[in-house]
Amino acid sequence: MTPWAERLAGVHGVLLDISGVLYDSGAGGGAAIAGSVEAVARLKQSRLKVRFCTNESQKSRGELVGLLRRLGFDISEGEVTAPAPAACQILKERGLRPHLLIHDGVRSEFNDIDISNPNCVVIADAGEGFSYQNMNKAFQVLMELENPVLISLGKGRYYKEASGLMLDVGAYMKALEYACGVEAEVVGKPSPEFFKSALRAIRVEAHQAIMIGDDIMGDVGGAQQCGMRALQVRTGKFRDSSGVPLEASQSQVSPAAKSRWGAWSRLA
Amino acid sequence: MTPWAERLAGVHGVLLDISGVLYDSGAGGGAAIAGSVEAVARLKQSRLKVRFCTNESQKSRGELVGLLRRLGFDISEGEVTAPAPAACQILKERGLRPHLLIHDGVRSEFNDIDISNPNCVVIADAGEGFSYQNMNKAFQVLMELENPVLISLGKGRYYKEASGLMLDVGAYMKALEYACGVEAEVVGKPSPEFFKSALRAIRVEAHQAIMIGDDIMGDVGGAQQCGMRALQVRTGKFRDSSGVPLEASQSQVSPAAKSRWGAWSRLA
Repeated sequence: MTPWAERLAGVHGVLLDISGVLYDSGAGGGAAIAGSVEAVARLKQSRLKVRFCTNESQKSRGELVGLLRRLGFDISEGEVTAPAPAACQILKERGLRPHLLIHDGVRSEFNDIDISNPNCVVIADAGEGFSYQNMNKAFQVLMELENPVLISLGKGRYYKEASGLMLDVGAYMKALEYACGVEAEVVGKPSPEFFKSALRAIRVEAHQAIMIGDDIMGDVGGAQQCGMRALQVRTGKFRDSSGVPLEASQSQVSPAAKSRWGAWSRLA
Repeated sequence: MTPWAERLAGVHGVLLDISGVLYDSGAGGGAAIAGSVEAVARLKQSRLKVRFCTNESQKSRGELVGLLRRLGFDISEGEVTAPAPAACQILKERGLRPHLLIHDGVRSEFNDIDISNPNCVVIADAGEGFSYQNMNKAFQVLMELENPVLISLGKGRYYKEASGLMLDVGAYMKALEYACGVEAEVVGKPSPEFFKSALRAIRVEAHQAIMIGDDIMGDVGGAQQCGMRALQVRTGKFRDSSGVPLEASQSQVSPAAKSRWGAWSRLA
């Protein structure tokens, strides 16, 4: 067997990150990464089960899928595991009424959630919505609670838009954690529960699955901790300065196979 | 001797925090805390040496002193140890050219600093200036640097304005630390260098001095780590829920004497 074939022996399912792997978000909705439309098509025609596993929290699943379909991807809403719906399930199960510090684009996912008299804060990638005033309001809500609960949709440090690197929700999560003396509950990658729900949806065991993403902590480290294999693409937030990706040198995870699209699309 | 006299035996100098101790900032400049004008006057008429030791970084020293004088305090610019001048000294010594994420009110303190082609970021309590756009710019500057240097004027979690608790610079410092994978250099309380410079200004040894503040970490913990005594007032950000101040229960410092103004003004 070739080194690639050995590495991928026994893989039955593929989890695909979206932002920075399939496309770079940005002005006008963003642009598909070269080769990605074809790679997804090839994967879906193969024997492998495919699920899209994203931390996207600026858009509803409907909006995200609409955008990706316009860019040429074969994808439907039912194939996407995303943090907002997962958070809504947790809020309902625990009787939590959130103060929402989120992007307007994802607000519709929370349409059937009671947001009166909040007893927790949900923070997501609010982009320009991370004003001082909005952050301060979330802080004040938490400080008023006897048992403050902070739920964060992902904990990414940054992501890449066409115009450059952009601060992600993790930075603002850390700000609130420090100010309020609380620890956030993360819904989304790298939370094991989140990966497991994506695997359940395609009925594949962790040891039979591979996660493909651009984030060494959120995608690669998180998947490895769940017993999955993982592969980091050299697109999106991957940074190749002096041969060492910035995040790899700072993370605790073992180095993962690094790949460009040409390489990992050979999976299929 | 009374318990108070015992606790204060050998004290020759007093470092006074300003915000939350002498006054609460807020609309129209803020308001003096009841009893504080008289307490400062009594201290300055006593045998004790007095220095004001503040993390105020929204205002220049000139503006701050002007405000306090209008509120009735006996204070001059030369009696104030503040982070912005201390940071300027460090920038000059190390040939650092900062990208400034600061409040317009303190910008004049940096008038003679070269800010072209930045090789570090200085962050201070920018208030409304902590927009997503401004935070992202500071993040991008740091990510472009081979050896990123982040200098933070204080690391406070929050402070109190007349309208309520407000997020302080420490929260935003943590956000940038996490996003960029760096550790900030703190200029201001609780940095030992900062306390020492205040003590040098009144020629008092640490063991002969007492710090009076409302912040259990920045004021009390920091001073104790420098070998000073410390006293926490029950004003400003002090929180008395169920008798336990929120921050005291979360901090590593030993419990400090707690006092209202009436108590600590007996010092003199």
